[in-house]
Amino acid sequence: MTSIDLNSDLGESFGAWKMGDDTAMLDLVSSANIACGFHAGDPAGLLATMRLAAARGVTVGAHVSYPDLAGFGRRDMDIASEDLAADVIYQIGALCGIAKAAGTRVGYVKPHGALYNRIAQDERQALAVIKAIKLIDPGLMLMGLAGTQVLDLARAEGLGVVAEVFADRSYMPDGTLVSRRMPGAVLHDADEVAWRMLNFVRTGQMKAVDGTSITIVAQSICVHGDSPGAVTMARTLSRLFEENAIAIRPFLKQC
Amino acid sequence: MTSIDLNSDLGESFGAWKMGDDTAMLDLVSSANIACGFHAGDPAGLLATMRLAAARGVTVGAHVSYPDLAGFGRRDMDIASEDLAADVIYQIGALCGIAKAAGTRVGYVKPHGALYNRIAQDERQALAVIKAIKLIDPGLMLMGLAGTQVLDLARAEGLGVVAEVFADRSYMPDGTLVSRRMPGAVLHDADEVAWRMLNFVRTGQMKAVDGTSITIVAQSICVHGDSPGAVTMARTLSRLFEENAIAIRPFLKQC
Amino acid sequence: MTSIDLNSDLGESFGAWKMGDDTAMLDLVSSANIACGFHAGDPAGLLATMRLAAARGVTVGAHVSYPDLAGFGRRDMDIASEDLAADVIYQIGALCGIAKAAGTRVGYVKPHGALYNRIAQDERQALAVIKAIKLIDPGLMLMGLAGTQVLDLARAEGLGVVAEVFADRSYMPDGTLVSRRMPGAVLHDADEVAWRMLNFVRTGQMKAVDGTSITIVAQSICVHGDSPGAVTMARTLSRLFEENAIAIRPFLKQC
Amino acid sequence: MTSIDLNSDLGESFGAWKMGDDTAMLDLVSSANIACGFHAGDPAGLLATMRLAAARGVTVGAHVSYPDLAGFGRRDMDIASEDLAADVIYQIGALCGIAKAAGTRVGYVKPHGALYNRIAQDERQALAVIKAIKLIDPGLMLMGLAGTQVLDLARAEGLGVVAEVFADRSYMPDGTLVSRRMPGAVLHDADEVAWRMLNFVRTGQMKAVDGTSITIVAQSICVHGDSPGAVTMARTLSRLFEENAIAIRPFLKQC
Repeated sequence: MTSIDLNSDLGESFGAWKMGDDTAMLDLVSSANIACGFHAGDPAGLLATMRLAAARGVTVGAHVSYPDLAGFGRRDMDIASEDLAADVIYQIGALCGIAKAAGTRVGYVKPHGALYNRIAQDERQALAVIKAIKLIDPGLMLMGLAGTQVLDLARAEGLGVVAEVFADRSYMPDGTLVSRRMPGAVLHDADEVAWRMLNFVRTGQMKAVDGTSITIVAQSICVHGDSPGAVTMARTLSRLFEENAIAIRPFLKQC
Repeated sequence: MTSIDLNSDLGESFGAWKMGDDTAMLDLVSSANIACGFHAGDPAGLLATMRLAAARGVTVGAHVSYPDLAGFGRRDMDIASEDLAADVIYQIGALCGIAKAAGTRVGYVKPHGALYNRIAQDERQALAVIKAIKLIDPGLMLMGLAGTQVLDLARAEGLGVVAEVFADRSYMPDGTLVSRRMPGAVLHDADEVAWRMLNFVRTGQMKAVDGTSITIVAQSICVHGDSPGAVTMARTLSRLFEENAIAIRPFLKQC
Repeated sequence: MTSIDLNSDLGESFGAWKMGDDTAMLDLVSSANIACGFHAGDPAGLLATMRLAAARGVTVGAHVSYPDLAGFGRRDMDIASEDLAADVIYQIGALCGIAKAAGTRVGYVKPHGALYNRIAQDERQALAVIKAIKLIDPGLMLMGLAGTQVLDLARAEGLGVVAEVFADRSYMPDGTLVSRRMPGAVLHDADEVAWRMLNFVRTGQMKAVDGTSITIVAQSICVHGDSPGAVTMARTLSRLFEENAIAIRPFLKQC
Repeated sequence: MTSIDLNSDLGESFGAWKMGDDTAMLDLVSSANIACGFHAGDPAGLLATMRLAAARGVTVGAHVSYPDLAGFGRRDMDIASEDLAADVIYQIGALCGIAKAAGTRVGYVKPHGALYNRIAQDERQALAVIKAIKLIDPGLMLMGLAGTQVLDLARAEGLGVVAEVFADRSYMPDGTLVSRRMPGAVLHDADEVAWRMLNFVRTGQMKAVDGTSITIVAQSICVHGDSPGAVTMARTLSRLFEENAIAIRPFLKQC
């Protein structure tokens, strides 16, 4: 029986503002990228989500971000390497504390939003993130977009890495994501997405926007947790996988 | 040879704004209460101060606060117990991460400003802080004002505690601090403060504002780190102690 | 034909987080208390809501708060009078700028959450708010809870005031609100609330929790804007008023 | 008698953290760029500085910034035009409120730090700032670096503009500033700076780093307000100008 990891961005409420349905998503995913307070997540909300993750044995990752609550971490920032590294260390530390209080631990790090996109291409910022992880705990893995150089850089620096694909995003023939500014960048049909992912897990092949088939190596599939149809999409995918004997299992065993 | 711990509030710069002389103070104190980002301290600045502390073998404490950067944590807040506990866990976790990256570790927790004063009297908030510490690491000690109930509550909950006196504050005959709104609440003469503390370490007695002598049990002396004369006062005290064979030693061994 | 003002708290989204249905509510109310960024409201979101209010001719008030985004302004704070006054001035100024950009102007000030409750009783903080309003624009009115001393203080200081009742809250026989910690403090049945308010507008009498009837003088009714059933409740009330020839009109003409 | 405006960045303290000597600088400059809370400046501190400016009849400008307190507004941000425009409107409005409470008014807008540099070249962000100013008050002038396109764009959009030179910065032969990463970018000798500016005011010529002389049209000279030697440099320049019958006068009359 084949297996794959399913991850989602969770813990993204903030104070009085709710986002996503963490409880429902945690019943479906095997790994949870939990916000660390810089783009989303107040401590009490993070602790509540962390306890739900711990209770379900879901593996937990630190979803680190630029410091930008008003912009939800989606705005690119020219931040000095030292500042970025310290910001990442601070966030990982904070989430590790929350995890410890909830009886679990953080297993990996996934940069969020603009930082995620930036380090896929910007070597300076990528190395700052990698350095930060090594300084706080070289046992933490780095999750990134399949095929991007940040994963190679991390590997070269001795970190474990996990490559992911996005369930609801279109791909260019070169394996990069179709820009969100282009039509068809995001797929909305839950069944289509589920079948697309089933095919990917079975074959390692993804159909690009031009109809060609591309090979992608990935250990995890990212499903969104914040949009209205998020739970439906994750559930549809989860059911189809179950019917086809694809197990949803964390890439990393939860400690 | 008698010994006592000397602690100070450090890491209180924020971004472009500098406060205090952490380098100078870290040559004088044996324990450093380092800000955690809620009343002061940006991650890069905290990491820099933490590295200085680690290099000198100074014991490190998490100086946790209400979330109030604009008010420097000095404004009393009616915060729900769950929110306060999670805030404390988040801050301790963040500082533990910074400490780990700097090759050291956090040994104790000292609430800051309004939170420090509040939990000396407010059992609900005191218990929230104590619960937070126990959840993240019951091995962490709690530092508080000598003679206050929060230390008894912490002890009853199984936490190690360390009681402190303030070098430059006047005391009431009942052992509480003279309110800052009263004249003479703060002592400014470095020599007077140093002799007063030398006498306290030798005898366990502190002269109150009315001239009576009161007994205080404390394992640490707090010297301020942020005022202009802070370094001078700490240095004067340190020299007088050295001349009188009083060793300045952490109450807790640095790991 | 009798008329009454209907007000609601709007503009309470923040960045990626949405709260309430401002568009729907602005079709129902005559006055909008718009957040100013301290408890909720990012500038772009505030400008969008302000434009909706301007397009409908809804009167706009500055919904000023303690600086507490994480706590949504619901946590009581011991803030110095000078700091509070300056915070209020800053927020009113910011919202006036947003209003000007949207082609309208701010007509009144309504403190939010913990600040609203605090100044109903705390004279020092009440006077700080009043002083702030007078300094920035003595023509701005102050909205507060009917029967509280802050309105008397404001009147004595020469400010115009508008007293409000809460549509969905129970009242004590002395005219104060039943604490939210008590059962029955909040009314959930839209029809009951609508009839209760219709009766109040017609008679100036409100039935207290003990069944006695109390006289309340108020120029505005507050309906909540953030809860799921908020729009339904406001619509039910609005229809009942229309059927009974009670016009919903701002207490203040929009400029 | 020739005259020139002298401007400086003020109001850059934040809560417990002090920066610069606003009182001393306000005795020397004719225009004050006052922070608006996004890179620096808490409301109470802004009000205090504003009152000092009002008492001295110093013209006041809104020193608007990216929302980045931790980075002091010095980090470039990819911010959507709508968000940037609303952020600028919010900040101008807030400072106008502070000014009104202090009995003065804001006369111009000067973008700060990374935003200042960005809009000198980035037309999209420049237009967002210009649009914001026009929406809130088309009578406000825009201050920018002499020779940059943002001033042309603003003029074309009907705004009044004021061009400035930096007293302590070296210039390239093409009239741009020598990058801070290059040696000699910043001039530290107060006398040299003063003579350089005297010569500039008299001739309209500035000596570039390669020794050639370049023509720059500017109505204001910017002197820094935050560095330790800031007051000395401003005072030296002020005295030399006085001795040579150059009056320091605002480019804009204070209302």
